[in-house]
Amino acid sequence: MTDIQRFSTADPGFKAQLERLLAWESIADDQVQATVTEIIREIRAHGDAALLDYTARFDRWTPVSAAALEIPRPRLQRAWESIADEQRAALKLAAERIRAYAEHQKTNGWRYREPDGTLLGQQVTPLDRVGLYVPGGRAAYPSSVLMNAIPAKVAGVPELIMVVPTPDGELNDLVLAAAFIAGVDRAFAIGGAQAIAALAYGTQTIPPVDKIVGPGNIYVAAAKRAVFGRVGIDMVAGPSEILVICDGQTDPDWIAMDLFSQAEHDEDAQAILVSWDERFLDRVAASIDRLLPGMERAPIIARALTRRGALILACDLDDAIAVANLIAPEHLELSLADPESVVGRIRHAGAIFMGRHTPEAFGDYCAGPNHVLPTSRTARFSSPLGVYDFQKRSSILQVSPQAAAVLAKTASILARGEGLTAHARSAEYRGNGSS
Amino acid sequence: MTDIQRFSTADPGFKAQLERLLAWESIADDQVQATVTEIIREIRAHGDAALLDYTARFDRWTPVSAAALEIPRPRLQRAWESIADEQRAALKLAAERIRAYAEHQKTNGWRYREPDGTLLGQQVTPLDRVGLYVPGGRAAYPSSVLMNAIPAKVAGVPELIMVVPTPDGELNDLVLAAAFIAGVDRAFAIGGAQAIAALAYGTQTIPPVDKIVGPGNIYVAAAKRAVFGRVGIDMVAGPSEILVICDGQTDPDWIAMDLFSQAEHDEDAQAILVSWDERFLDRVAASIDRLLPGMERAPIIARALTRRGALILACDLDDAIAVANLIAPEHLELSLADPESVVGRIRHAGAIFMGRHTPEAFGDYCAGPNHVLPTSRTARFSSPLGVYDFQKRSSILQVSPQAAAVLAKTASILARGEGLTAHARSAEYRGNGSS
Repeated sequence: MTDIQRFSTADPGFKAQLERLLAWESIADDQVQATVTEIIREIRAHGDAALLDYTARFDRWTPVSAAALEIPRPRLQRAWESIADEQRAALKLAAERIRAYAEHQKTNGWRYREPDGTLLGQQVTPLDRVGLYVPGGRAAYPSSVLMNAIPAKVAGVPELIMVVPTPDGELNDLVLAAAFIAGVDRAFAIGGAQAIAALAYGTQTIPPVDKIVGPGNIYVAAAKRAVFGRVGIDMVAGPSEILVICDGQTDPDWIAMDLFSQAEHDEDAQAILVSWDERFLDRVAASIDRLLPGMERAPIIARALTRRGALILACDLDDAIAVANLIAPEHLELSLADPESVVGRIRHAGAIFMGRHTPEAFGDYCAGPNHVLPTSRTARFSSPLGVYDFQKRSSILQVSPQAAAVLAKTASILARGEGLTAHARSAEYRGNGSS
Repeated sequence: MTDIQRFSTADPGFKAQLERLLAWESIADDQVQATVTEIIREIRAHGDAALLDYTARFDRWTPVSAAALEIPRPRLQRAWESIADEQRAALKLAAERIRAYAEHQKTNGWRYREPDGTLLGQQVTPLDRVGLYVPGGRAAYPSSVLMNAIPAKVAGVPELIMVVPTPDGELNDLVLAAAFIAGVDRAFAIGGAQAIAALAYGTQTIPPVDKIVGPGNIYVAAAKRAVFGRVGIDMVAGPSEILVICDGQTDPDWIAMDLFSQAEHDEDAQAILVSWDERFLDRVAASIDRLLPGMERAPIIARALTRRGALILACDLDDAIAVANLIAPEHLELSLADPESVVGRIRHAGAIFMGRHTPEAFGDYCAGPNHVLPTSRTARFSSPLGVYDFQKRSSILQVSPQAAAVLAKTASILARGEGLTAHARSAEYRGNGSS
């Protein structure tokens, strides 16, 4: 028996129970912080020399030179050619679908001209150079390479630099193959906080980038936070979560497996099912008990479900939607007959998987939408990783001499109200009809 | 004579000189950090009681109750009615223009259906509740209220909460009037790190928000950084900057005043002029010397220009554009006969002011585009504050039973390549043709 918790929204203590279940604060460990601060200082001061030192120390291999840190593009191609045919086909299809979806996200500039000739608008440009962090060793996820790299290339980023640690000098061919098909421009065999510092500040060998994206361990996350401002970063992700809303008509084994697919990530992962069909919750609980022993990652799944999982009985569909909007989940499955009638009422969710045939796993790999999504209730104010994260906007304005007279007066009054008289005079000069 | 520095891009040491000129790192003061951590802890633990304590201590007034912290909407209206007619007209025109521009930024969702029936898309929703920090006392800027509040309301944020400290209990009518016309829903007379903590975590009186925007002092900035993740925040701004590119044909007094309008903000503000006309640089230097003594904020302007200002001689227009793209300025004036032929080559800038009749001051107050812009070279990777900062996206996907067979195979291969077999099985269930 799995000890997954059962709640009911009708319980007087429900909100407090739910808050406890969702509670998550990433702990900023002083020791981690101090180590990262030291690594960044060393990389800034000594560049390649420090990078080689850390690589020898943390990744246990000694590059012959800094130049040897680069994984040349032909090596990526060789990896692409070396993997199994079915893997190559799967990566190719996934890349195509991710690219097709991303193309829809591309933002264009716009302009409009007012009757008096004033031009206003917004210019959109890609970032010049982006760094993509890819974890090495066990947690090497080729899907993550596709999801982070493709939107950047669709945005038009001319130079995408991947860094991936190679513990004991070992390269992961699936990751390199994914980098090849995703269009990564250069790759370096470095990792940890030292790779983040090198990307942020540059070394003799590593070119400095404008933004760093991609997941990493606690040192990588702390380093990203530390260099934020110098460069842009994507969000620092918490544990992954799924919320399934089901009307009770989906095969309970399917729903149990959807919960497992989240729980197998790690022991902090969160998998929650909400239904107004109490019998269905019983059936899913039975499926969980029956299927769990056969799972490769059963101990992780069991621990995640016990600690952070829940089966929640709602009063009805409306009540279930209210729970979803309260949780603001990273992944939301609407396993319903008519998800279309519900989706417009979802106010906060990273990605919404509609219908019985759309498990989260499709979104994780190949449906098209990005799998980098806001966690820990941050969907209340943030969005999936997308092409827009690799574009930026500049406001455009050109005031006509005619319009300048009107705006000069307004700007002058407001500037003087704030005691900023140079602003006022700069405006007034343009309002005097001369040029 | 002002001691503004003169550089030439042809100097062998130019790049190093420029880097030194631009260098800016916000110093994380341990004492500030410790104070802010303590304040946040107190507000989380004691809510309103702590908020009242801090208000009495830092703002030197004692509200009769927590409810007395609220500035009721009729009070905002009274402020609106009490200010001078020309100020009301100026705020109204500015608000209308800011709103009209913001309307163009509104993002809509989109969807597309693939031939096999699979639906993909993006749903766009406003944030539920946003907090707007407005500094009190001297640096009370009504324009900042308009610039932060209007995009949020255009985005459709239902509840916009303003906080503004009232040192010694004193309210600023211009700020309240701006809040009135901008559509602020509720206002509270609180400030400092305690206001940020109250907005992030909520108290009995202050409702918790999803995102906090607006400028503030070093305690406010540190508090925003600390609560980031719990809520969204806008960027933490550095000193303001302007870069003017001029062909030498604009009145040098105008350009001098544009530089002053930046420099008068504070001693860290940065004002730089680039031209390929050396005689023009001399004339602007002469204008600076002649106009400076008459300026209300002459000491601040002089100090800012001496410390962080520069007149740069470029080889030609192309060279000047290269300097702009290196600096990635917050404000860029293209004071040129044909700015249109140049604007498309600007890769990084917060806002681009085109032509001789478009001083930055217009953009600061009333042209329409936002005056909250990326500083300290962050225009390389970030954008002006806009409606998009108050909207978020959710990915939408509904895979047809037909398509599920293909995606199941692809997802399964990739998931197994990553060792995630629950993902694989969850996908495979949907690929078996059953439902």
